[in-house]
Amino acid sequence: MRITRVVSTDVRFPTSRHLHGSDAMHPDPDYSAAYVVLETDGDVAGHGFTFTIGRGNDLCVAAIDALGHHLVGLDVRSLDGELGVIAKLLTRDTQLRWLGPEKGVIHLAAGALLNALWDLHAKAVGKPVWKVLSDLSPRQLVSLVDWRHLSDALTADEAVDLLERAAPRREERERRLLSEGVPAYTTSAGWLGYADDLVVQRCREVVDAGYRQVKIKVGADAEDDLRRVRLVREAIGPDVRLAVDANQVWEVDEAIARIRSLEPFDLAWVEEPTSPDDVLGHLAIARAVDVPIATGEHCQNRVVFKQFLASGAMEVCQIDACRVAGVNENVAILLLAAKFGVPVCPHAGGVGLCELVQHLAMFDFVAVAGDVEGRIVEMADHLHEHFVHPVQIRRGSYVAPLLPGFSSEMKGASIEEFRFPSGAAWR
Amino acid sequence: MRITRVVSTDVRFPTSRHLHGSDAMHPDPDYSAAYVVLETDGDVAGHGFTFTIGRGNDLCVAAIDALGHHLVGLDVRSLDGELGVIAKLLTRDTQLRWLGPEKGVIHLAAGALLNALWDLHAKAVGKPVWKVLSDLSPRQLVSLVDWRHLSDALTADEAVDLLERAAPRREERERRLLSEGVPAYTTSAGWLGYADDLVVQRCREVVDAGYRQVKIKVGADAEDDLRRVRLVREAIGPDVRLAVDANQVWEVDEAIARIRSLEPFDLAWVEEPTSPDDVLGHLAIARAVDVPIATGEHCQNRVVFKQFLASGAMEVCQIDACRVAGVNENVAILLLAAKFGVPVCPHAGGVGLCELVQHLAMFDFVAVAGDVEGRIVEMADHLHEHFVHPVQIRRGSYVAPLLPGFSSEMKGASIEEFRFPSGAAWR
Repeated sequence: MRITRVVSTDVRFPTSRHLHGSDAMHPDPDYSAAYVVLETDGDVAGHGFTFTIGRGNDLCVAAIDALGHHLVGLDVRSLDGELGVIAKLLTRDTQLRWLGPEKGVIHLAAGALLNALWDLHAKAVGKPVWKVLSDLSPRQLVSLVDWRHLSDALTADEAVDLLERAAPRREERERRLLSEGVPAYTTSAGWLGYADDLVVQRCREVVDAGYRQVKIKVGADAEDDLRRVRLVREAIGPDVRLAVDANQVWEVDEAIARIRSLEPFDLAWVEEPTSPDDVLGHLAIARAVDVPIATGEHCQNRVVFKQFLASGAMEVCQIDACRVAGVNENVAILLLAAKFGVPVCPHAGGVGLCELVQHLAMFDFVAVAGDVEGRIVEMADHLHEHFVHPVQIRRGSYVAPLLPGFSSEMKGASIEEFRFPSGAAWR
Repeated sequence: MRITRVVSTDVRFPTSRHLHGSDAMHPDPDYSAAYVVLETDGDVAGHGFTFTIGRGNDLCVAAIDALGHHLVGLDVRSLDGELGVIAKLLTRDTQLRWLGPEKGVIHLAAGALLNALWDLHAKAVGKPVWKVLSDLSPRQLVSLVDWRHLSDALTADEAVDLLERAAPRREERERRLLSEGVPAYTTSAGWLGYADDLVVQRCREVVDAGYRQVKIKVGADAEDDLRRVRLVREAIGPDVRLAVDANQVWEVDEAIARIRSLEPFDLAWVEEPTSPDDVLGHLAIARAVDVPIATGEHCQNRVVFKQFLASGAMEVCQIDACRVAGVNENVAILLLAAKFGVPVCPHAGGVGLCELVQHLAMFDFVAVAGDVEGRIVEMADHLHEHFVHPVQIRRGSYVAPLLPGFSSEMKGASIEEFRFPSGAAWR
């Protein structure tokens, strides 16, 4: 069974009409997927995507088309042991590499294609992606990673040791995963565009639904932030964790002052206090404040994660399923986080990010970190209805998916309706 | 006079056929320009581009098309004082920003458009770009910059002070620029794909032509590097400076060992020893070796330059005219380099990079750094024949251009011949 064709589609949802997803840096996102299907001459297809917020989704689609030929002709039955090599075909293309390297549009496209390839591979072997990964040996896992530019922080041999130490308890943790899932927190309660009373009402609702952490957006006016954080803390009580997200808008010194003013509210973390490119800026902030510093959703690749994690600038590691080059690069990042003892709390939301990243968090729990302590996965309650197998949340935790694949397949009717610009939603 | 239309073209030169431009990371570049013309209802047009190495040039063209509408309708006669605001329209587009932020394809496209806008503005005021910049007041220069995420290293007020200290001697330095130009070094002698005897022969030729520095590519086999560096040092003698360029291929520890083995050859610098994203890796290398560490051509934006310059990880600052968001962001980087006392030795070569970056180096000399000590601009002797006003080199120095504009206009016949994929060169 071979991959015969790569079919890409520009799918956009008009979320900006209701300010869902609004934050200090992104006031009007239209949650979008540069969606790709790897067709085969057999009875399965691989579905994947990268996530954007509207304009420019077409650029990612074009980049998928530019890279897709590397996958055409691959034998789906013999991907085992080849997925590390194939990932490098996409990220090391000798001419396309210049457009990054390993960042921005071409890297988002590599992520979409590799996510689709993992969906296809998982379907071919009849397991969900988290289980495919969790069943690989330490050496097999390490072979997925592009080790270039990582060895000063972590070598392949060190990673094997680290995985071998976690291996004996994999079965026990898999049983626990299947009964308990992995804990989730929700962002849907606190978008910046929401009025105070709506935020408070939604926070109460999600706590009633069993969530043990909520997150709200900050980063606009300082007084507004203080008021909103105080209101939410009062609404959820002292035992539910509260995180805030500034979405990159502060200067380094400003971030320090603003975060200090929020310290009385016992925050779980402050997310993206400044530029996602600023390792040394985050390090200065982390050293100056008592609230853990979280970032990662805009971290472009493993080399930037390496610096954040090794230096102590990132105290909560927020992997994203689509920003880096898919499953393979996220395995590298999970290994780096484990080496430096930083908890991984994946970024999700958007469209389909929850569906994908739950697999990575579950693999992390079973085979890498071996613990859920301090780990929690973002959940935003938007657009799940467009997926064939949407995430399931039970009592504030993600339920482990059991069906083969990456939970990445969007409903055909949704793709048609939201296809940009010709779908009914955009006409 | 208003901008009426943005016309983009995919122009590619088949340089890979002769290994011109080959290096350890880019074995087969086809030097290319994502070229853009800002048409007006008057008698001038603005020409600009970003540089790529082949595949993916079409993605930059598409990104130029996605951003170009921000410039349509602008009044060419009243750009003075508006160029900082306009630059931010391109880099802060609320939805396209997600694809970076400020990096990769969308940032390369913003660079092409802003370079074209500066060409148009300079033509409208009747001066070369270096002179337009050199005639701006400190406050006007500072208004060109997006100061977001810079203030922990440099504030606008500090930058004004720095520029005011350099201002009194601008006229004297302009006279010196007009008589002497700015010093150049050449890379055309030492591509990795060239045989030893060709490298030696070319190095002798360029020294005879008056160059006081040459640069060769390293980073493949360690023994080959040693042999080539020794041969070139013997050929050029002890008084001509010799730099080497590893094009990102080493691990951090490997870079330290490899550079130490080259220390006996009195190198001017080692360029791109490892990943261009690795600030902390470069810092470790810079601390461990006696050869100055140079990088910058792949530095994605001012926030990464800020970290490199403030930490001491970049000891030679290699700005690029097209990688960042054009003239505006390069002004920010020149100011950061001046603040931290790091010499700016611009990256050039490719197609048209020499034509553009000479203006920035000349502005740096006249109005920012105020010195040519330790400063030298890259020159590669390829593809200049396609420009209407190509660079002029006299006795190893760039001659200051006197014609209005950015020297960025490509000949119409060249654009037609090398248009991809329909031009005669590609059919």
